[in-house]
Amino acid sequence: MAANEILDIKKLKEKFSKFANERDWEQFHTPKNISMALSVEASELLEIFQWLKTGDKKELSSEQLNQVKEELADVLLYSIRLADLLDINLEEAIPEKMEQNAQKYPVEKARGNSKKYTEFT
Amino acid sequence: MAANEILDIKKLKEKFSKFANERDWEQFHTPKNISMALSVEASELLEIFQWLKTGDKKELSSEQLNQVKEELADVLLYSIRLADLLDINLEEAIPEKMEQNAQKYPVEKARGNSKKYTEFT
Amino acid sequence: MAANEILDIKKLKEKFSKFANERDWEQFHTPKNISMALSVEASELLEIFQWLKTGDKKELSSEQLNQVKEELADVLLYSIRLADLLDINLEEAIPEKMEQNAQKYPVEKARGNSKKYTEFT
Amino acid sequence: MAANEILDIKKLKEKFSKFANERDWEQFHTPKNISMALSVEASELLEIFQWLKTGDKKELSSEQLNQVKEELADVLLYSIRLADLLDINLEEAIPEKMEQNAQKYPVEKARGNSKKYTEFT
Repeated sequence: MAANEILDIKKLKEKFSKFANERDWEQFHTPKNISMALSVEASELLEIFQWLKTGDKKELSSEQLNQVKEELADVLLYSIRLADLLDINLEEAIPEKMEQNAQKYPVEKARGNSKKYTEFT
Repeated sequence: MAANEILDIKKLKEKFSKFANERDWEQFHTPKNISMALSVEASELLEIFQWLKTGDKKELSSEQLNQVKEELADVLLYSIRLADLLDINLEEAIPEKMEQNAQKYPVEKARGNSKKYTEFT
Repeated sequence: MAANEILDIKKLKEKFSKFANERDWEQFHTPKNISMALSVEASELLEIFQWLKTGDKKELSSEQLNQVKEELADVLLYSIRLADLLDINLEEAIPEKMEQNAQKYPVEKARGNSKKYTEFT
Repeated sequence: MAANEILDIKKLKEKFSKFANERDWEQFHTPKNISMALSVEASELLEIFQWLKTGDKKELSSEQLNQVKEELADVLLYSIRLADLLDINLEEAIPEKMEQNAQKYPVEKARGNSKKYTEFT
């Protein structure tokens, strides 16, 4: 694994914005449409795994692993595009949600089971 | 917008891995299951926009905007988790896919239309 | 429109079951995997509409309309397959859900707005 | 299982159309929006199975089985609504697609494997 792995979201927002602008695609890039495109990409990722047992690395061909990499990148690109369109700061949003999830799923209630937090007793 | 907006993916991978480990959730976190969870979160995002006109910022209530922020964070968290499980480096994957998209959609063919690249003449 | 439009679900269940059996696909057709396949098909349908304005019939090319027809058929086929695997009777399930929806969305509260029932005051 | 299991699609189209009309929901029921709603329901179905092993009937609680039944009904209802909006006859579309699938996946090539037809050699 790389020593570092950093995403400069501000720069990626700018690059995708320029990409859309050069193609006169702003007319198509409403938040609604981007939410659809993101969901479509997430399903293309899902499709790779649909008939597999667990999708572990050893179960994937190198071609499938490469496809996962590409679809995952598309999911992230549309996520970043949507964040840009709605002025959402992802550097803030992600740790906030992680904190929320930790509170929804305290270790003592969540350990070893996959229940939704709404089903905890 | 923030002066900077950086995601330290390596650190986020480690945090999510620790979160899963503490809850004994590795048994559930197969790549296949995570691809499902990612798709479910992408659909929860989609749901917010389903009856809206464009989903522009001014069409969203502050509550809806906050929901978008939260669902987007979950999409990114599962994307990062999947990348971790399959040793995918996102700092490499994203610019590679952007480059591919630029080649699939050259400005002169893509300008002003939303055709899929497979339909270019 | 046809004078009648009837689906013989029992027969369709049997046909799909035979189709899977002949291909030795029962090993892949777990309810979990079929729920994934169904979701993938629903997204292929979604993809057709992602950059369109409303997707009204006059906005669709005859090729797109045909694609919608095909993807919709796949959604229904996997729905029927899942119902078969879990012994769900769709002739009962559909009117029951319609009745539930009518109670969740009474005319006086739902008229002219697209709020979710959980947000009614 | 019931001796018969029949869906009268024409009648279901009329009932859903009346349901939407009474609530002044035609403004929201564009084909595009219905494709989103359908995809959202398919994901709610997917969510039930996301952490399960196979989702076989014996692995589901009676509550989960009931949820599957309800989400499946919603998928079918939106499918029928979309077919109505675009004048698609499902009694024709389904056997046509089944025939297509049989040609894409001939027994001798498909037996015992889950490859996509585009990968057959």
